Order: sequence, then structure tokens, then C-alpha cells
Amino acid sequence: MSQIRHALSVKRADDFAQWYQAVISEGDLAEESGVRGCMVIKPWGYGIWERIQRLMDDRIKAAGVQNCYFPLFIPLANFEREAEHVDGFAKEMAVVTHHRLIADGKGGLIPDPEAKLEEPLVVRPTSETIIGDAMSRWIQSWRDLPLLTNQWANVVRWEMRTRMFLRTSEFLWQEGHTAHADRDDALKETHRALEMYRACAEEDLALPVITGEKPENERFPGAVETWSIEAMMQDGKALQAGTSHYLGTNFAQAANIQYQDREGSQTLCHTTSWGVSTRMIGGVIMTHGDDDGMRVPPAIAPHQVIILPMLRDKPEDEPLLEYCEALRDALAGQTALGEKLRIMLDTRPGKAAAKRWDWVRKGAPLIVEVGSRDMEGSKVALLRRNALWNADNGKPNFDFTDRDGFISDVSGLLEAMQQDMFDEARARRDENIKRDCASWQDVVDFYSNAGAFPGWVEVQWSKPTGAALEAVVEQLKEQKLTIRNVPTNSAAADGSCIFTGDAAVERILLARAY
Amino acid sequence: MSQIRHALSVKRADDFAQWYQAVISEGDLAEESGVRGCMVIKPWGYGIWERIQRLMDDRIKAAGVQNCYFPLFIPLANFEREAEHVDGFAKEMAVVTHHRLIADGKGGLIPDPEAKLEEPLVVRPTSETIIGDAMSRWIQSWRDLPLLTNQWANVVRWEMRTRMFLRTSEFLWQEGHTAHADRDDALKETHRALEMYRACAEEDLALPVITGEKPENERFPGAVETWSIEAMMQDGKALQAGTSHYLGTNFAQAANIQYQDREGSQTLCHTTSWGVSTRMIGGVIMTHGDDDGMRVPPAIAPHQVIILPMLRDKPEDEPLLEYCEALRDALAGQTALGEKLRIMLDTRPGKAAAKRWDWVRKGAPLIVEVGSRDMEGSKVALLRRNALWNADNGKPNFDFTDRDGFISDVSGLLEAMQQDMFDEARARRDENIKRDCASWQDVVDFYSNAGAFPGWVEVQWSKPTGAALEAVVEQLKEQKLTIRNVPTNSAAADGSCIFTGDAAVERILLARAY
Repeated sequence: MSQIRHALSVKRADDFAQWYQAVISEGDLAEESGVRGCMVIKPWGYGIWERIQRLMDDRIKAAGVQNCYFPLFIPLANFEREAEHVDGFAKEMAVVTHHRLIADGKGGLIPDPEAKLEEPLVVRPTSETIIGDAMSRWIQSWRDLPLLTNQWANVVRWEMRTRMFLRTSEFLWQEGHTAHADRDDALKETHRALEMYRACAEEDLALPVITGEKPENERFPGAVETWSIEAMMQDGKALQAGTSHYLGTNFAQAANIQYQDREGSQTLCHTTSWGVSTRMIGGVIMTHGDDDGMRVPPAIAPHQVIILPMLRDKPEDEPLLEYCEALRDALAGQTALGEKLRIMLDTRPGKAAAKRWDWVRKGAPLIVEVGSRDMEGSKVALLRRNALWNADNGKPNFDFTDRDGFISDVSGLLEAMQQDMFDEARARRDENIKRDCASWQDVVDFYSNAGAFPGWVEVQWSKPTGAALEAVVEQLKEQKLTIRNVPTNSAAADGSCIFTGDAAVERILLARAY
Repeated sequence: MSQIRHALSVKRADDFAQWYQAVISEGDLAEESGVRGCMVIKPWGYGIWERIQRLMDDRIKAAGVQNCYFPLFIPLANFEREAEHVDGFAKEMAVVTHHRLIADGKGGLIPDPEAKLEEPLVVRPTSETIIGDAMSRWIQSWRDLPLLTNQWANVVRWEMRTRMFLRTSEFLWQEGHTAHADRDDALKETHRALEMYRACAEEDLALPVITGEKPENERFPGAVETWSIEAMMQDGKALQAGTSHYLGTNFAQAANIQYQDREGSQTLCHTTSWGVSTRMIGGVIMTHGDDDGMRVPPAIAPHQVIILPMLRDKPEDEPLLEYCEALRDALAGQTALGEKLRIMLDTRPGKAAAKRWDWVRKGAPLIVEVGSRDMEGSKVALLRRNALWNADNGKPNFDFTDRDGFISDVSGLLEAMQQDMFDEARARRDENIKRDCASWQDVVDFYSNAGAFPGWVEVQWSKPTGAALEAVVEQLKEQKLTIRNVPTNSAAADGSCIFTGDAAVERILLARAY
């Protein structure tokens, strides 16, 4: 193995944070924009987002949720209405105060003092309050319920320390907002959205996730219940990849979302909200990336098969190009993972080997190189991104295979890769959850001895609230730990709480987190 | 005809502006948000935008243009660099000056004086300057050219007088930005984008448009050439439905977008930009809407066929629902206009007749009502949105047709409707362009006598510039006229300029405009 020369400038084991940045820059996913806290999402990164959007949107529409678009700007008054919501968001919002610039007389521009807004506007950090206004207009009677809406939008939360995809001041997301006649129906929707996120994460992004309820201290500001999907990164940290909130009647009360029930009386709605963002791409990178760069699961790869003709800038290139075009057209008739195959014939100027490593760093699932000799033998040289190296000789693991055989195998190759990537991540995740810590000291010992990339621990607790919970949170901070969630599928409690010593009522996941 | 009771509360002929608002509100397309200048796009209106996006995005991708995402916020300094661009935009932008709110001690919130930004940020009115920064980083050599990027985004231009879809402070659009090695290649791209817009407008939106170059005074700030597509609304006014700009080296100079050419010297790129927005939906409304509301061309209709079972809230409903579900499933196997049919089975509570008029006002292309008797006879009652009334009896023009015949005809019905709507709009447009005004007095007479909805005039001019052009613009203002463009397909000039009396060099379109 030692002779393998990996494609990235930095390895996961050496510096995970630097490796993450290297995957993004060397894989051409995104870059710093020069505008504080905002990134530029480059074509390959945005293509991945478009794929996630398409697949998630199909799931959203299949559930009968309708897309809408609501204003970017939210009046201050909306935030003043819901006290907890204000507390949660008021500290980190972009505020628009003027609507015009004028020359400052020194060649520059300044906000025009004459054009100061009477009431400042906030750039939406999330849209519960403005969509609540619309719901209060749209809902009259029980016939209008449930009201199921979603929007794809940019939101802004001012962040002091940013990291591309994971934490940026502006990010892209979808936010579902629904209103229901009662608690049961709203809770059902909260769980439907959570299950939709689990399915999309696991089936489309090949991200194994653990669903569960967040503890009180981790709830969305104003929510009654917050549920999440949590994924384990290769450094053992947790990434919250999506959340679904049951908001009770809190936002309905604040925005006056009422309906006339079948008996004719006015009743407050129960609302939910749920969202996933470009953060998911950070999760894909840190779950599937390796020392050669990004690896994109086939279901969300903008191109699944890259055809690389080994051009020499000579007349002989022409039949080779024709051979590759015919290959592309033959592949275009195939499907994989329920969709038409996405193929890129890369004829850009430059050496084939350099372009090969570009696509390796980007993480395209299958790379097919074709030279004159391959053409003559009706062959292709196939490289699978998740089996890149020949461990025996430290060279790229090319499979010199029959062209027609490749065409008939391609669908199966991609579907197997999708499954293999999921299985690999799930096995790693499961190996790295420790479930036998019976005391806080066990937890401390584990994190002291588990090396650079410790995983998660699942422990039993008595679900303290208020000040007792705050004490637990402080204790966890000493180990840089947070409570991720109460896993839906964990075993029943049968011991005592590692924090209070009381009888445990449930199990919780502890982890260091992004 | 007199006994027809139309579905809208106001007719085009009576008050076109009010009629426009009525189509939007009664067709559930959009509504005022309560936030100054911003609208809420409701599910049916947003569904139309999603269709336009999908079809335009396919065209954009087919041209090899790659989608990216750039920051919402633009530093002031970017606007200070390109003088004409500043002049054009500096007067109408939302300015972010603070990044935090604090309690004002009286129960309200105010921008935190401690959290004032050192340099204010502008909410993008358009992204030439910030994308220019990225281009200057991404382009090194001739091998990197052309660089073809696009983004789908929201933009903000502060507007004092807003009108839904046509002019809102925030709107949704796509903006293409490309960089090229030379003028020829950039001009080719400018025209490719213009032709793409023409094709999308005419083929997808059924909007007949006239392509042509804008006169100097109507150019995009900083552009060398601005080209547009212009559509005629039913009140005879013009709507600019898309623009494509050749920017020369102006923005390349400002952002330092250079490349090393094949000879090794540093050369400025030539750039272009082009965009269409949610404004197009306003164009669809004012071109295809009628006194019964919206009419959506089948290619951009979120649902093309509405199945309305005449439910009675009784046990007999069950076989009727099954019959309708089977009809939906049979239709789902059909294609029209190159895509799978989009069908909505509307089982919401409420009377079938009330729901029928909902869908009429929304403008769904085909409405199919099914009652028990229809079911027994294997029939459906078909209503075509573009042939709604029986002029003889003033009643809805139902076609009681065979179920299986309908299934086999549906594709042809939709494709014919798409073509008919285009032909109808084109015929009306062509009838309303007057081409024989030989003098300014002819123009004045025409607009004095042409009634409430005059059309356009095409006149010859000598293409004055500078102060002479300004004088023409002032003269036109007296008649509330503007120069729309120099139509690409107009005849050669053969007379004298109606403004200067000099020999004419080309023909221009004059119109009142949105």
C-alpha cells in the first residue's frame, strides 16, 4: 500500500479539517467568495445540490406538499411576536436599514441617509413567522387543513466562524411549513418529514443516519419537539443533517392561525416545520470522501460516467472521438437507480491523465478511458471511484473490459456502488458507537483513550429538565460533547442515569459535533 | 354571447389593470405579502414558475452552460468599480448595515449599534460584479474559455411602485454570465441566449416575441449592446420579457478578467449576461388570460388535465372514485409535448361546479368532469379552457366524449391548444403593429385615434445618438411611448427618419410599455 500516491495534498488521518478544505477546493466544489461568510458554489458542487434538490423535491411533492415562494425580507415586528423565537435568532441576523446608496463625494458610495427605512427589515434566517402570516390568511375552515407548503430558498444567519457547506452566513435549503387541525395530525407530519429525510439521506446520499428526538436544550426556538437525523463523519463527529419540528400552537398563537372546526368554533392550528440544507453536502464529503478527494454516490452524481478519450491533437483523434460519441449514445439509452444515465464525454483540451485525476478528485463514480488501442479492440479502461487502487502494485485499478459488456453492466455497477458506499459508511458508524458506558467516568475514559477520531456513545439517562439539564450540558462541555438525540430505535432503558444516578428512562447519543 | 356570465369579477375591456389583479388573486397565483414590494407566490403561480424553470434550465444546460451559486450580498466596493453600472443601480438597492438585533427595552427590537458592519453590503440587484470576481479567479488561459455560467436566484431592486410579477422589489430569475476570448465569440453567445429566450417564450410559453437590439438609451448599465425579446399584451402595451447583453470588456476591465492567449500575452475577456425572471408570468397572464381568468399554455401548466369526480358524500362515491383513479392511471401513461402528462385528480371536499370554476380561473388546460351517469356510459365531460363557452346558448361548452377516445386524443388536444394559443396571440400581435407611419404626426394621430388598447408602430429613423437621441426620447414621452427595439427581422430602411428628417438607417418599434 505504501507506494500509492494519493491525489489530495493532505490526508484525513493527518489533519481532518485541512483535508475537508482540500476536498472542496481540489474537487472544485466551492470556494470562499470574498464576501464575509458567503461561499461560491461551483458547478460540480452545485450540480450535486441540484441532484439532492430534485430527489428531495420529488419526495416532497409525492407527499402532497406544494411549493410556494415567500419574501426574503421579514419585518422586525414578526420577530417580536414569538418570544422564544426572537431569543433564538435575534443575535445573528442581517438587517436592511436603507434602500438607496449615494455618492460620498470621495469616489465612494454610502447608504443614503434620506433613504432610511422606517422599520428595518431582516433577511430571513428561517420563515416560520412570515409563512405564519400567509397561513392565517389562507386558512378559514377545517376544509383548508392540512395546509402543506414548502419553499426552496436562501437564508442568512450571521456566523462568526464559518466553514464551507457546514456553516455559512448564507445557505440554501428547503423549509417545509404545515398547519393541521390537531396535535396528532401535526405530529404525524413531523414524523413523515423525518422519515422522508431518513430515506433521502440513506437511499439518495448513501448517508446512514440515526433518527431521534432532540433534548429540550437543543430544540428549535419556539418548538415543542425537535427531531433530527444524525450522521457520523469519518472523524467520529456527528453532523445534524436535517430537522423536523412540531411547533404546537406557539406560532399559530403568534400569527393568529385559526380555523373554524366542524362544530363551528374557532380553533388554533398546530404547525410543523422541517428543513435540510446545503449542509448535507458537507456530510457527503466527510462521510464518503477519501485521500483522493470527493466520492459522490451515483444517485446524486451530476455525471455518473465520465468518458475520457485519450486525444493527441492529431488527425487520428477523429475516429476515436466518433467511437466515444457512439459509446456515449449507447450509454444514454441505459438507466440506473430508476433514472436515465448521466454521462459526460470530456473533450476539453489537456492530457487524459490530468483530466482523469480531476474527475477522481471530484468523485465521479465511473471513469472510462479510451485510447486508440482500446477502440481497435472494442474495449474500454474502467476505473471505479470506490475501488481506485490496486493494492498489490499501488497503481490505479483499471479494469480493461469489453465495450458491450460495460454497457450492459453499467447500471448494475452504479447500483452496487450506491449500496456499497452506504454499507461501508453504516458499518463504520456502527463500529464506532459505544453502548456499554455505565457511568460518566466510562465516558470520560472512552474519550481520553479513543484516539484522534473517537465515535459516539449511547448512554442511559433520567431525562432531567431545567437546571438539572443545564448541569448535564455543562458537564458534557468539559469533554466537548453534546447530546445528539434520543434514538428512535434504541433499546429500552434498564439501568441508571449516568448523570443523576436516578433510574434511567431512555437512551441518548453523545458525540462531538459539527 | 350576451348571456355568458364570465368567471372573473372584472373584464379586460373595462379596466385592464384591475382585471390583471383579479386574474392573479382569483386564479390563486400570488398575493401581496405585507412586506413592502414583495409578493407571496402561491402554489399554482409557483408551479408555473417551476415549469418555466425546468424548460429553460434544460435549454441552458443543452448549451453547455453550468449552474453555480454566488453570494446574495455584494460589497459596496464592487459597485464603485464600474461607473455606469453604479449610476444604473445605485438608486434602488437594499443595504444591509447591521448583523444583529437587540431589545430596545420597550418590548421591541432594534439593530444593535455594536453590530454595525464596517462596510455595508448590498443585496444583489444583479450579479455581474460578484461573478466577475469569480471569473477573474477561474480564468487563467485560453483553455478556460469560453466560461459559461448561470444562476437561479432571487434579486432585489427597491421599487416605489410595484405590480405583482411585473415589478416587485424582490423577484426570482436566472442570470447567465459568460466570458469569451474575443468580441465575436461573446456576440455569438449574446445572440445564442437571445434565440434561446425567443424559443422558450414562443414554444413553451406560447408568447410570440420580437427580438431586436435596444437603442443606446435603453441599454443595461455598463453594456455595449443590449438585446431583448418584446411581447405584446392584450392592452397593446409591450412587455420586455428577457434581455441579453454584450458587455464588451467593461466588466472584465473592472474585475480584471484576463486570460493568457495562445501567444502568451495577457488579454481582457469579453463578457455577456442574460436574464429572464418571474416577470414572464405577468406576460403569460396579459397575453393569454381572458374574462374567465388565467389560461396556462399546456407546456407550462403544473397540471394539464384536472379530473373532477362529481362526489355526493355518499357510498356511491366509491365506484366513481375508482373509475376516476383508473382514468388518471390510464392518462399517466400518455405523453404530450415530449413529456409525461401531468394530471390532477381533485377529490377535495366541495361541490364539483365550484371546483370547476376554480380550475377555470386558474387556467388549467383541460377539465374533465365525471358523474355517475358518465361512468356508466364510459364517458367523460370535457371542457377545454381555450374554448370554454358555447356561444349559442351561453353555457360551458362541454364535450361529452368517450373515455377511451379521450385518452387517445389527449396528447393531440394539448398540443393543438399550445399551438392555437400561440397562433391566436401572434395574429393579434401582428394585426396591432402599424407599419405605415411616415411622420411623427402620423404616430400622434394613431395614438390619438386607436382607442383604449392601441398597439405598436414600426417607424424608420436615422439612429440619432447623444443629445439628439435624448430629444427623441423626450418627444416620445409626450405620447407615453418608448423605443422597444430594432426588430431583427424588420425590412431595410428606405425612407426618412420621422424624428430628424434625415435618411433613415433602420426601423424601430415604438410602444407604451410595462
